[in-house]
Amino acid sequence: MLTGVQVVLAGGDARQLEVIQKLTEMDASVSIVGFDRLDTPFPGVSKAEWTPELLRAADALLLPAVGTDDEGTIAAVFTDRELKLSDPFLEAMPKWGKVYTGMAKPYLRRLCEKHQIGLVELFERDDVAIYNSIPTAEGAVMMAIQNTDITIHGSTCIVLGLGRTGMTLARTLQGLGAKVKAGVRREETFARAFEMGYEPFYIADLARQAEGCDLLFNTIPNMIITAQVISRLPLNAVIIDLASKPGGTDFRFAEKRGIKAMLAPGLPGIVAPKTAGRIIANGLIQMILEDSRQRGEQP
Amino acid sequence: MLTGVQVVLAGGDARQLEVIQKLTEMDASVSIVGFDRLDTPFPGVSKAEWTPELLRAADALLLPAVGTDDEGTIAAVFTDRELKLSDPFLEAMPKWGKVYTGMAKPYLRRLCEKHQIGLVELFERDDVAIYNSIPTAEGAVMMAIQNTDITIHGSTCIVLGLGRTGMTLARTLQGLGAKVKAGVRREETFARAFEMGYEPFYIADLARQAEGCDLLFNTIPNMIITAQVISRLPLNAVIIDLASKPGGTDFRFAEKRGIKAMLAPGLPGIVAPKTAGRIIANGLIQMILEDSRQRGEQP
Repeated sequence: MLTGVQVVLAGGDARQLEVIQKLTEMDASVSIVGFDRLDTPFPGVSKAEWTPELLRAADALLLPAVGTDDEGTIAAVFTDRELKLSDPFLEAMPKWGKVYTGMAKPYLRRLCEKHQIGLVELFERDDVAIYNSIPTAEGAVMMAIQNTDITIHGSTCIVLGLGRTGMTLARTLQGLGAKVKAGVRREETFARAFEMGYEPFYIADLARQAEGCDLLFNTIPNMIITAQVISRLPLNAVIIDLASKPGGTDFRFAEKRGIKAMLAPGLPGIVAPKTAGRIIANGLIQMILEDSRQRGEQP
Repeated sequence: MLTGVQVVLAGGDARQLEVIQKLTEMDASVSIVGFDRLDTPFPGVSKAEWTPELLRAADALLLPAVGTDDEGTIAAVFTDRELKLSDPFLEAMPKWGKVYTGMAKPYLRRLCEKHQIGLVELFERDDVAIYNSIPTAEGAVMMAIQNTDITIHGSTCIVLGLGRTGMTLARTLQGLGAKVKAGVRREETFARAFEMGYEPFYIADLARQAEGCDLLFNTIPNMIITAQVISRLPLNAVIIDLASKPGGTDFRFAEKRGIKAMLAPGLPGIVAPKTAGRIIANGLIQMILEDSRQRGEQP
């Protein structure tokens, strides 16, 4: 349980509602900021004003999936007011306090370093990334169905990278009846792909493999779907790039050649906000629990 | 090959382009009507005017997925002119000629009977219905992803009816990681569902099974998702009805209770027109081939 733990949750979208609910179930003391437009009251949760004073006794400051933008603004869909995280706020936090977010931009990282406040990036955890890969894969499937005139069943799909997301996506496509080829770099991943019934190949061979490909999914955050690769793709192929911005596709060249190529947005929050919220809530609770235990054990 | 076979193809959408292409590959003599707005020429195919004279020597008249409406109008997206099938047209056809369509409304059925012209309904063929169930299942998956805030993975899905479409849908959902329950009527289907790793139950037990269901898919063309069933569903459950119009759901009551319920439109033509076109083309060619062989064998 989180009895006695002071949590301030600032901003976010529908996913944070799952987090708030879970925190109250665990008996944490929760203040929320940036939820003016939310009518549903959470029993035991107080709506607060966004002032440095609010963080004076906070063990944990919870920010949304993308902590702040490059100017420190916290995204918040349930309010019209701007929430900005700046020096006075982290200055006010106790030294044992921590900031929790999905992933941090340089602004947030520098701010935490400056004030020696611990920063926890949830999406860096392998388990959270794997859970999140499930709604990501379903979102990718949805995009594939919407953007092709053929079925996934019976199509030839290439998945680049068999990491946390690639593995889930390959299994999902196979489950739908696609012929799945997996582009990998390492021998052990090649072997695993073979074992799982995919057709593995090494990334160096990608341009040749591109011929005859209906759907090309990328999870590798480097320029990998180059002009050379795109020039070998059939004209009705579709590229769905799941790597974080700016992706790994030469989008300019794809457009020039008339090949549909899309950089997928944050799919979990779009296709399954409730599941995505639960994943964040479970991950956060576990980390806050561990951190509060460690604090308790310190002399 | 279909050398020497006279085919008139009237109306339809993008799916018919696959049919036209396949017919020319098979060397049939093809005239098409209702494609004024189509610029891409098909080599060896002549665009014709819609007159009874056109059918004078036709071995086969190919109509779109839904042959005609209740007034005899043939749907045609590539023209602004109205195509109407009436007495003079079928009167002009040779007695050995046949009309081929996806499914026929009473108007078309009566017209063919009156003029003793054979009518072939493609979607009644089991193989065609099974091929078509693949894009239907993918369309249902797309609707499920779009209309829930959870992932299909880990959700509890009920599929009512394990026929040609239900079987495909259950397998697809299982492939995505859902927990699949199958509502069946017959002992042998119960056994098959068990063997495939679904959780089977008898339809009589549906109201009880509805509790805890996230996604309820129906393929049975009778009123089956009654008010009594809907009243036991969780409020955030979603009903996707794939049975042909008017479906098997008490939509009025679902709306009253605030439960999302959708009658799926003709999904293959929407989510995978090219695949759907190929399915129709393959089925048609096979039937025209068989019919022309039988004509050849007759004395």
